[in-house]
Amino acid sequence: MSVSPGLLTDRYELTMLTSFVRDGSVDHPAVFEAFARRLPEGRRYGVVAGLGRLVPMIADFAFTGEEVDWLHAQGVLDEQSAAWLRDFRFGGDVDAYPEGDLYFPGSPVLTVRGTLGECVMLETLVLSVLNHDSAIASAAARMTTAAGDRPLVEMGSRRTHEDAAVATARAAYLAGFTSTSNLAAGRLHGVPTVGTAAHAFTLAHESEAAAFASQVATQGTGTTLLVDTYDVAEGIRTAVEVAGPGLGAVRIDSGDLAETAAMARTLLDGLGATETRITATSDLDEYVITALADAPIDGYGVGTRVATGSGHPTASMVYKLVAVGREPGGRLHPVAKKSHDKVSVGGAKTAWRRYDGEVLVEEWYRDDDTDQPGARRVQVPVLRDGRVVHDPPLTEVRTHCAAAVASLPAAARGVAAGPPYLTVSSKESP
Amino acid sequence: MSVSPGLLTDRYELTMLTSFVRDGSVDHPAVFEAFARRLPEGRRYGVVAGLGRLVPMIADFAFTGEEVDWLHAQGVLDEQSAAWLRDFRFGGDVDAYPEGDLYFPGSPVLTVRGTLGECVMLETLVLSVLNHDSAIASAAARMTTAAGDRPLVEMGSRRTHEDAAVATARAAYLAGFTSTSNLAAGRLHGVPTVGTAAHAFTLAHESEAAAFASQVATQGTGTTLLVDTYDVAEGIRTAVEVAGPGLGAVRIDSGDLAETAAMARTLLDGLGATETRITATSDLDEYVITALADAPIDGYGVGTRVATGSGHPTASMVYKLVAVGREPGGRLHPVAKKSHDKVSVGGAKTAWRRYDGEVLVEEWYRDDDTDQPGARRVQVPVLRDGRVVHDPPLTEVRTHCAAAVASLPAAARGVAAGPPYLTVSSKESP
Repeated sequence: MSVSPGLLTDRYELTMLTSFVRDGSVDHPAVFEAFARRLPEGRRYGVVAGLGRLVPMIADFAFTGEEVDWLHAQGVLDEQSAAWLRDFRFGGDVDAYPEGDLYFPGSPVLTVRGTLGECVMLETLVLSVLNHDSAIASAAARMTTAAGDRPLVEMGSRRTHEDAAVATARAAYLAGFTSTSNLAAGRLHGVPTVGTAAHAFTLAHESEAAAFASQVATQGTGTTLLVDTYDVAEGIRTAVEVAGPGLGAVRIDSGDLAETAAMARTLLDGLGATETRITATSDLDEYVITALADAPIDGYGVGTRVATGSGHPTASMVYKLVAVGREPGGRLHPVAKKSHDKVSVGGAKTAWRRYDGEVLVEEWYRDDDTDQPGARRVQVPVLRDGRVVHDPPLTEVRTHCAAAVASLPAAARGVAAGPPYLTVSSKESP
Repeated sequence: MSVSPGLLTDRYELTMLTSFVRDGSVDHPAVFEAFARRLPEGRRYGVVAGLGRLVPMIADFAFTGEEVDWLHAQGVLDEQSAAWLRDFRFGGDVDAYPEGDLYFPGSPVLTVRGTLGECVMLETLVLSVLNHDSAIASAAARMTTAAGDRPLVEMGSRRTHEDAAVATARAAYLAGFTSTSNLAAGRLHGVPTVGTAAHAFTLAHESEAAAFASQVATQGTGTTLLVDTYDVAEGIRTAVEVAGPGLGAVRIDSGDLAETAAMARTLLDGLGATETRITATSDLDEYVITALADAPIDGYGVGTRVATGSGHPTASMVYKLVAVGREPGGRLHPVAKKSHDKVSVGGAKTAWRRYDGEVLVEEWYRDDDTDQPGARRVQVPVLRDGRVVHDPPLTEVRTHCAAAVASLPAAARGVAAGPPYLTVSSKESP
């Protein structure tokens, strides 16, 4: 059994819907916004990701007849709300920061306009997708900067939920990773996939030489041989013996990577394998990659730390009602929670950035959609009347992300901890 | 487009398979084991979870014809391995620690026996499922202990990938949570679901009183009213005014929870609502729950911290070849990686526990399947010849987990940091 996107939802969304149907407010106009109140400690910027996965799920947000029956039987829906939900399709408008763009505390990353009923139900799905994918992309972008020209392979599938792994590969790729180990990400999202062999491959053969010979027979001499199953130096000698000095690469997956890579480079050069690359894997993250900048390493594989957002596995975005009307088609009134530590600002926001080579300012205007002189609008239309109007290919998202990160000053792009580079300020319209 | 379980796999599994097919070792017998070398820092025990999700995916592990064509076109498979994979079904044996049981560093949590080809391909899927679900269950079990008799609702869906959210709800439930907000977990796994209303519900109405009245009209007076949208004391007075003193519960989602709960209790009692429960949510975890033990709180909702494994979102299990034969049906030889920091022990292991009221010892014997006097075997048969032979209902898993955690001494069950309660020791057979 599988479920519709509609069921990937917290029960309270449908409990609220039931009341809205009953009290007559289900068709009142509403605006919800997704935003983050803060960035993870020490992070200077975040990268918006997940939009390309989210948008088709919003367009397909619906429930099968059997699911509505089940919800009714569970007491989640009453008769009236079950009838309402049976034919439900999202028919509203969505605007959002383009996928791969930067966000800061207060950035109105996603804005949903429609009826109260259709908007309220999207909360869980919107946040699940944006919070997961943005957490991965935000960590991956920092690793990309740290790695400089050296390619990065995402290989964290085994460290995260099997479906989250596919989204992880996609998010890491759009944030600058070169490829992934995850085949489903290749199949579903067109992310380039790579992979050669594990230690098990060497152990399964009678000798390391037999394993390398078998791999070279199928993959060619351009392959990457994993040389640390027994002894790295011995493994490298065997690798070059078997594949010749035209061997593509060796991979080192344990020990002190800087020290081992230096030894490996000297050894490879001595064996005439001067073009053979050295790939390092094993508990890498943006900090270790930075520390390895001077080591003779030609590429990195990153697993656990990218799949877990490098210490911050969720992006902490929230989805809040910011405006509501009191009758169908009625005028929107700004609304906001006021108590304690979770204050929000009411009203639909339009975000703009000002640049001077680098990005200088991000600001929003409330209930004002007019062009702001000297500023670039951040949000783009994503759905109109429930139809998708924004669906860029992933390679374009990746290019957009690289440009967005490049618009930050070098200090904000680096791995050093600091406050958010920008806090989004409000510009009340005159 | 969706994908088969087979494609939720790292490319190198199929690259290795291609070589095994070509060099003739694909049908050699093999044994792989999943285990953790360590627990997250400070954790005294882990909880095995994910088996009930994993087992059907192993039984269904296969590739569609179109997927095989795609893998061939991508250069992942050659002709011969594509042909081999086209009809593939897992036909081996799996033994495992029952879901919900404890594990410690070195525990052989899952053992896969079959041909080299069929065993090697399972690595990524086995680890994705076990590492994710065990990370959640291990954190959830500690929260369950901290909460004592107070019920715990899992409500972290919005903080994790939309499909990981379903597995999160399942894992938290088997580790002692009472229910979840996630509807798909109810539909797919039978986890009890709960939910009432968000702040948006109150904001969407002209007044808090109107919102409460609408909710009570559909949910009855036994519902839980969220009272902190504007002012908690005012919210409570309004709630009791609207629902009467028979109101089921109030929920507090911000501020100092201990202080606010004490105020709320006094206020509720003063209004005659002496049976109205107080539910607390907002950044809870096992430590905060422990600190709230003396507060007049009747139940907790836990989100981010359970969905992210309370600081440890992955369980760091690995999947290693431990024995292999040199011909089809041949005798198994133990194998193990020897270099550097990632040493493994070869040979298939059978795990046993000794008890004296509490669990005292966990030990394994290598290549010895005979009964050990005075000890209980930990592993159970899960698949035989590719057929599922172990499929307990989730409620039984939940009961098993509670008993397993109860077999630990109180100090090891608590939230205080410490070394793993047990390190699994080897008993070489005489």
